[in-house]
Amino acid sequence: MPEITINLAAGRTDEQKKGMMLDITQALVKNLGVTADAVVIQINEAPLNNKMKGGQTFVERAAAAKK
Amino acid sequence: MPEITINLAAGRTDEQKKGMMLDITQALVKNLGVTADAVVIQINEAPLNNKMKGGQTFVERAAAAKK
Amino acid sequence: MPEITINLAAGRTDEQKKGMMLDITQALVKNLGVTADAVVIQINEAPLNNKMKGGQTFVERAAAAKK
Amino acid sequence: MPEITINLAAGRTDEQKKGMMLDITQALVKNLGVTADAVVIQINEAPLNNKMKGGQTFVERAAAAKK
Amino acid sequence: MPEITINLAAGRTDEQKKGMMLDITQALVKNLGVTADAVVIQINEAPLNNKMKGGQTFVERAAAAKK
Amino acid sequence: MPEITINLAAGRTDEQKKGMMLDITQALVKNLGVTADAVVIQINEAPLNNKMKGGQTFVERAAAAKK
Repeated sequence: MPEITINLAAGRTDEQKKGMMLDITQALVKNLGVTADAVVIQINEAPLNNKMKGGQTFVERAAAAKK
Repeated sequence: MPEITINLAAGRTDEQKKGMMLDITQALVKNLGVTADAVVIQINEAPLNNKMKGGQTFVERAAAAKK
Repeated sequence: MPEITINLAAGRTDEQKKGMMLDITQALVKNLGVTADAVVIQINEAPLNNKMKGGQTFVERAAAAKK
Repeated sequence: MPEITINLAAGRTDEQKKGMMLDITQALVKNLGVTADAVVIQINEAPLNNKMKGGQTFVERAAAAKK
Repeated sequence: MPEITINLAAGRTDEQKKGMMLDITQALVKNLGVTADAVVIQINEAPLNNKMKGGQTFVERAAAAKK
Repeated sequence: MPEITINLAAGRTDEQKKGMMLDITQALVKNLGVTADAVVIQINEAPLNNKMKGGQTFVERAAAAKK
């Protein structure tokens, strides 16, 4: 019954997100001894203008990373 | 002032969601003795590829449910 | 699989919280057509100094309500 | 390392959201003594039909506000 | 910058929780290509009376599991 | 009606937390044009063993910072 919420900037592929959620499911099964069926994960994906770190929006961070 | 966040896979109708939020508002008014105006509910809706249970994405779960 | 998180100021009885969570479970079963077993609810309870509304902490709001 | 999640009804401009996140970053730097780079903020924006207060959806609240 | 929040019933050891968070960090590094330092995880632990699944509080579920 | 949730490691004083929540309230009033009364903030405080960044628990980070 652990419920995992992931706040994530938009831009990852379905494969990346699926692989991440599968490995997280395993992390809980292995360490907490719960069944996989008890593990629920939701990604709350934010467009880059809806997220900020260090006073820069993720739009600004992405632009700076391209320079 | 209780704030309720609902992580939900996409796919429900507006009527279903409104009915659910109305009944949840009543649940808090009845049990906690707060006014309806103090109750705020937000649904964070995830596309099926952004949610996993039991090691299956909700895309996979929906496909398996159709078989 | 809807997961409900309730941000709540400390101070309610176990009976109030259980009654609220039971009625919320019913709200989802009735409106979304999920089974009760698919509904997971967690209350994240905050001490009154860790919560603010209208620029007043819940410590200040409780004191004002007693006057 | 404080992580801030903001549940917000859709409808604000990018400028409003950026200004809000910048001021929130400053609020944490000033009061907690953390660096700006340690502060991560995500806005989880909900369409008006996915949010309710006082038993009214934000669609209904917006319509009432126009009258 | 992915931020992970885990809603968890109280009762796990520090070793279980640390092992889980380490494996989750690796899951994000491996699948999203972020550095470990970008990954922040917080467990919001709830006492058993503050959590419900299937209409049973986790106090009731723990008692039923002992029978 | 914006609802703000802050995931924070334990250890700050009530004054720091109150000052932070007051400034955040102002950030929303100023940038979104809402009234202070519409702004609800909850701090979900985690003990240091329930939080990890960069693969280190906050217990380990605090110990490393003291060296």
